[in-house]
Amino acid sequence: MLGNFSYCNPTKLYFGDDSLKYLNEELPKYGKNVQLIYGGGSIKKNGIYDQVVETLKAQGKNIIEDGGVMPNPTVEKLYEGIEIARKNNVDLLLAVGGGSCCDYAKAVSVSVNCKEDPWEKYYIRFEEPDCETLPVGCVLTMAGTGSEMNAGSVITNHKSKMKVGHVFADERIMPRFSILNPKFTMTLPKRQMIAGVYDIFNHICEQYFSGDDDNTSDYLSEALMRSVIHSSKIAVNDPQNYEARSNIMWTATWALNTLISRGKSTDWMVHMIGQAVGAYTDATHGMTLSAVSLPYYRYIMPYGISKFKRFAVEVWNVSTDGKTDEQIALEGLSEMENWMKELGLALNITELGANMDMIDGIADSTLIMNGGYKVLNRDEIVEILKKSL
Amino acid sequence: MLGNFSYCNPTKLYFGDDSLKYLNEELPKYGKNVQLIYGGGSIKKNGIYDQVVETLKAQGKNIIEDGGVMPNPTVEKLYEGIEIARKNNVDLLLAVGGGSCCDYAKAVSVSVNCKEDPWEKYYIRFEEPDCETLPVGCVLTMAGTGSEMNAGSVITNHKSKMKVGHVFADERIMPRFSILNPKFTMTLPKRQMIAGVYDIFNHICEQYFSGDDDNTSDYLSEALMRSVIHSSKIAVNDPQNYEARSNIMWTATWALNTLISRGKSTDWMVHMIGQAVGAYTDATHGMTLSAVSLPYYRYIMPYGISKFKRFAVEVWNVSTDGKTDEQIALEGLSEMENWMKELGLALNITELGANMDMIDGIADSTLIMNGGYKVLNRDEIVEILKKSL
Repeated sequence: MLGNFSYCNPTKLYFGDDSLKYLNEELPKYGKNVQLIYGGGSIKKNGIYDQVVETLKAQGKNIIEDGGVMPNPTVEKLYEGIEIARKNNVDLLLAVGGGSCCDYAKAVSVSVNCKEDPWEKYYIRFEEPDCETLPVGCVLTMAGTGSEMNAGSVITNHKSKMKVGHVFADERIMPRFSILNPKFTMTLPKRQMIAGVYDIFNHICEQYFSGDDDNTSDYLSEALMRSVIHSSKIAVNDPQNYEARSNIMWTATWALNTLISRGKSTDWMVHMIGQAVGAYTDATHGMTLSAVSLPYYRYIMPYGISKFKRFAVEVWNVSTDGKTDEQIALEGLSEMENWMKELGLALNITELGANMDMIDGIADSTLIMNGGYKVLNRDEIVEILKKSL
Repeated sequence: MLGNFSYCNPTKLYFGDDSLKYLNEELPKYGKNVQLIYGGGSIKKNGIYDQVVETLKAQGKNIIEDGGVMPNPTVEKLYEGIEIARKNNVDLLLAVGGGSCCDYAKAVSVSVNCKEDPWEKYYIRFEEPDCETLPVGCVLTMAGTGSEMNAGSVITNHKSKMKVGHVFADERIMPRFSILNPKFTMTLPKRQMIAGVYDIFNHICEQYFSGDDDNTSDYLSEALMRSVIHSSKIAVNDPQNYEARSNIMWTATWALNTLISRGKSTDWMVHMIGQAVGAYTDATHGMTLSAVSLPYYRYIMPYGISKFKRFAVEVWNVSTDGKTDEQIALEGLSEMENWMKELGLALNITELGANMDMIDGIADSTLIMNGGYKVLNRDEIVEILKKSL
């Protein structure tokens, strides 16, 4: 724990199978006009929409509908949401859905009073808002992104083939409150559940596979990985297991609310490559990450061998007897691969719709970060993408 | 992760060897009158007092002195602090010291505008404040209590021989900001450092040794225990090791800021017995905990054998080959005892000034909690205290 840092995360979380009722405690804190943000309409089928609308009405709110947020929210949808918020003098952005809805709500939050083009300002120049923001609340229906307790927001621009995440520095942009009911995640198709599980796991990996210092954050990362591995093995066979689903939901929140990156460097190259794949294929976020992970980690392993060895021992219980560090590290990655197969994750980008012709474009769209064990060049990204086909 | 809960912890933390400078960012948020709370004067010797006073003056604050907070702050001192705050229309309570100063500041915070007797209201009847509270800020000089990021406050009443902790439910009572500079903890005598380490470790144990469900919180507890064990072994031989001291400081904060108790039951009997010992001996808090821990845990182990087995394996790397669960569990506690000896912790209450004649009184002063693996009766507390002599 050597680096200097600050930490502040004021999001109020309500967790459990009764958590939606706490919307009644939060709503009175905000004005009348609530922009109700949701996705493709699954919340209308499973009854969550009705419960939320009933609560909003009972609290005397004006409901301003903003449905149709897509899994990878686009810049065009963002412009639409900004107009809705402006036209209706919105007081609260209430996202009911997964990370996409929550990310989108934050993007609207920082853009409503912004005089510049938000895509240019926030997703190209990575600036902080210098205007008033709107408060965001969240009713989470999918575990994975961690968006419910952080200031991150990913927006996709199909024209420029870019999927860009901005983690804002300002805690005003974190949701004021998030309602986490594990039962709400049980209506998801299994493929969405396991994509979320891998998103969680990879968020932890991105923060873990960096740095050589001794750091409490890495111990916490191992704990979250062990818990999500354990619970995901139960949930994949028994998706209605509340205990497993609740642990998965809670690990998701803590995997990406800044805690486990405190005082240390981080990597994020799997996300950079995965997001570029996503911009080309529009595939589910977690699947783009799983499809490129093993080629990436096997490639960088020699540069961070002691951490990969620790990963094998502490996360996967690999025994060290009579083995070289490299053998131990590789065995850890094999255990990880076995688990990914057990869950049914995508293990190549071909099945996500990518092909050889796209490789150059995906490599060009990949933002290169410098916190990992090896700073990649473009040729290396091409190499990893080819191995991911 | 089965229980329903809420979580909100808005304390802003500044961590690192440059963290004091962020006092300049926080002070402008509050009014002019700052009650400067500190202990026996060690901060005057090591220069921290001068640095804080210089910053307060540069920010144009009126400094209202409130030194002399004792290691176990008394109800008489609390009454004195309330008078100081009232007389000077204090806007901010700034605690510069360890957990005692921070606990005391919170007690003043909830009492200044309280019309009733605060000891009766908060520490006997355990009520929440129904008045305005004062904001608390903290510059931490000792790692252990976790008071820097929670709403807990322990006050001692020597007349009634009671040392009572109240964990307030209201996040307004958490410090608004805390400045954590690991270097500030390096001026402490080694005995205070190791007492703090054990306070940390026991906070985790109190939350870990309860419940049989599968819970992410228990994985996080194991991570914090592993990290603090590792770093304490380094720090006890090399107290100037910044990496070790910084990990210890960070684990202290997360061991008791409510995270690792989310969704689960907790025990807290070591604290109840230890605090009763403290009320009789005025001994250092962490040492009262260490002195009664092993007799307590060996006594309750049979009632929570699967958790004690898990503790042995996951925290102490005890091998399971050819052993019964009981053997594994006992081996874990022996490993814990070895570590406690290596640090030089108090392993009996006799060396803290307790004796046979006090046992009945200490047992009478012990508040009995019901979250552990065995709800103790008074005879059992007497038995554990005798084994702790």
